[in-house]
Amino acid sequence: MLALTILGNNSAIPAWDRNPTAQILQSLEEAYLIDCGEGTQLQMSKYKIRRSRINHIFISHLHGDHYFGLIGLLTSMSLLNRTQDLYLHAPVALEQIISLQLQVAAIELSYKLFFEPITTEGIIVDDKKITVKAFKVQHRIECWGFLFTEKKNPRRIDGNRAKAYEIPKSFYEQLQKGEDYVTKKGTIIPNKEVTIDGVKPKTYAYCADTIFDESLIEKIKSVDMLYHETTYLKALHQRAAERFHSTTEQAATIAKKGNVKRLLIGHFSSKYEELDEFLIEAKEVFANTDLALQGVSYII
Amino acid sequence: MLALTILGNNSAIPAWDRNPTAQILQSLEEAYLIDCGEGTQLQMSKYKIRRSRINHIFISHLHGDHYFGLIGLLTSMSLLNRTQDLYLHAPVALEQIISLQLQVAAIELSYKLFFEPITTEGIIVDDKKITVKAFKVQHRIECWGFLFTEKKNPRRIDGNRAKAYEIPKSFYEQLQKGEDYVTKKGTIIPNKEVTIDGVKPKTYAYCADTIFDESLIEKIKSVDMLYHETTYLKALHQRAAERFHSTTEQAATIAKKGNVKRLLIGHFSSKYEELDEFLIEAKEVFANTDLALQGVSYII
Repeated sequence: MLALTILGNNSAIPAWDRNPTAQILQSLEEAYLIDCGEGTQLQMSKYKIRRSRINHIFISHLHGDHYFGLIGLLTSMSLLNRTQDLYLHAPVALEQIISLQLQVAAIELSYKLFFEPITTEGIIVDDKKITVKAFKVQHRIECWGFLFTEKKNPRRIDGNRAKAYEIPKSFYEQLQKGEDYVTKKGTIIPNKEVTIDGVKPKTYAYCADTIFDESLIEKIKSVDMLYHETTYLKALHQRAAERFHSTTEQAATIAKKGNVKRLLIGHFSSKYEELDEFLIEAKEVFANTDLALQGVSYII
Repeated sequence: MLALTILGNNSAIPAWDRNPTAQILQSLEEAYLIDCGEGTQLQMSKYKIRRSRINHIFISHLHGDHYFGLIGLLTSMSLLNRTQDLYLHAPVALEQIISLQLQVAAIELSYKLFFEPITTEGIIVDDKKITVKAFKVQHRIECWGFLFTEKKNPRRIDGNRAKAYEIPKSFYEQLQKGEDYVTKKGTIIPNKEVTIDGVKPKTYAYCADTIFDESLIEKIKSVDMLYHETTYLKALHQRAAERFHSTTEQAATIAKKGNVKRLLIGHFSSKYEELDEFLIEAKEVFANTDLALQGVSYII
């Protein structure tokens, strides 16, 4: 299971109490921060996101509404005496900006910050529990999308049946891995007799800022949840294209053609105070759509 | 008259709904932004501060809690198609940070940004209505205080008396400057007969982040309002000194010895949720003290 919490859902200029882009994707074990617009650390306090759960930060691109909050978060973590390593996955130019800001403030971080520049498509994190793949999206500057895929969850043991077959607890870990049990007498107890499927691994695709681009469909195919930006309503499709952004209709088209389970839309232009129309327009094309609303956690 | 609005009153790590440092000093004509911690543009929206009134921004030093909100504000102004010139007064290293951030985002600002590095003590702004002087304060890195001094206001004309003396309206501007009027018959009407003193020009001193430093007393002498940081309560005077910060007692001592009219204290450490004790301790030394509270405008 994954839970995605929206910390900011607005595009460039913060407005209508909407913050610039930031999202937290949480598994049972840890939290992944995706983009980090100005004010993200304040939003994290507000929504009780523990900074210490974050070991990986992903920055899609270097427009300010996606990373101006990062340096504040990094330095606060240091002021709070963090010691765990932190991995920052981002376009290469970010490293110099951060170095410079630390240098002028004469700050040495209390923890090791590993800067992992994203340079090509492919797997950028391969943990025990999850893999993260970066893929290119088309925006005004270099920009990356991220595909999070949970690893296969262990099989769950049916305690009563395992007991009935007198399987020792010391073998449970192997049962979870799917192994059959062989009794002392040589009888094979098939794994499926005493276990049930683990929770299905989930997938989440984050498409950052992007122009309408059908080549994305292949990359996000069949995910459990797709986040796709909708800076504009469909009437402004021309402006969207000029600015390398997307409309409601376009985001929903990607979701539909990609056969995803659920679509989340965000990165709303400051010109819109009300968001109802975004949902209406997207649902016309893809019914299972939600607005990315700040403070809300979407369970995947 | 000046009005000082507090946008952020906390020290390094935002906490307890307190933002990092930012203040707006407003005259009838314009607004001066003093420091710009993360989230300042959001605070400006919240408290209805018009960005277009700001022509000068002052950054005391390059610790993040005093400038991480600047780049967001500068780029938002551009997205809103600002065309007025903007003057940024700050330690020299800030220029490279901003240039780099604009460059990686491929942004050209819609307005002219004049970077005015602060390198020595002295007058850094000399407008029609105000002068601003930078003075050194002692902190862990290069740090500046700012002294705002309104220029002498024009004398106010006593309309009834000016009419009684039959002084033509065309001479009123000269009256405001203090000139006497000479009638056609050669009679001198002394200026003081027909005018009253203009509003007394006001002074505001901002002491940024500073260790307890009695050399400040001379620099802020007799100002109408002094802002002095109080990161810690007096019990933590040793920690304050180690970190180049001040306590309540120390700030109030500077105010008292400087014979200022009023003291405003802020930059509270995140370790304190409640601020009452700050006020109590400071008032023991200097009675006319207020807490710098977010969203509150203090009239000078």
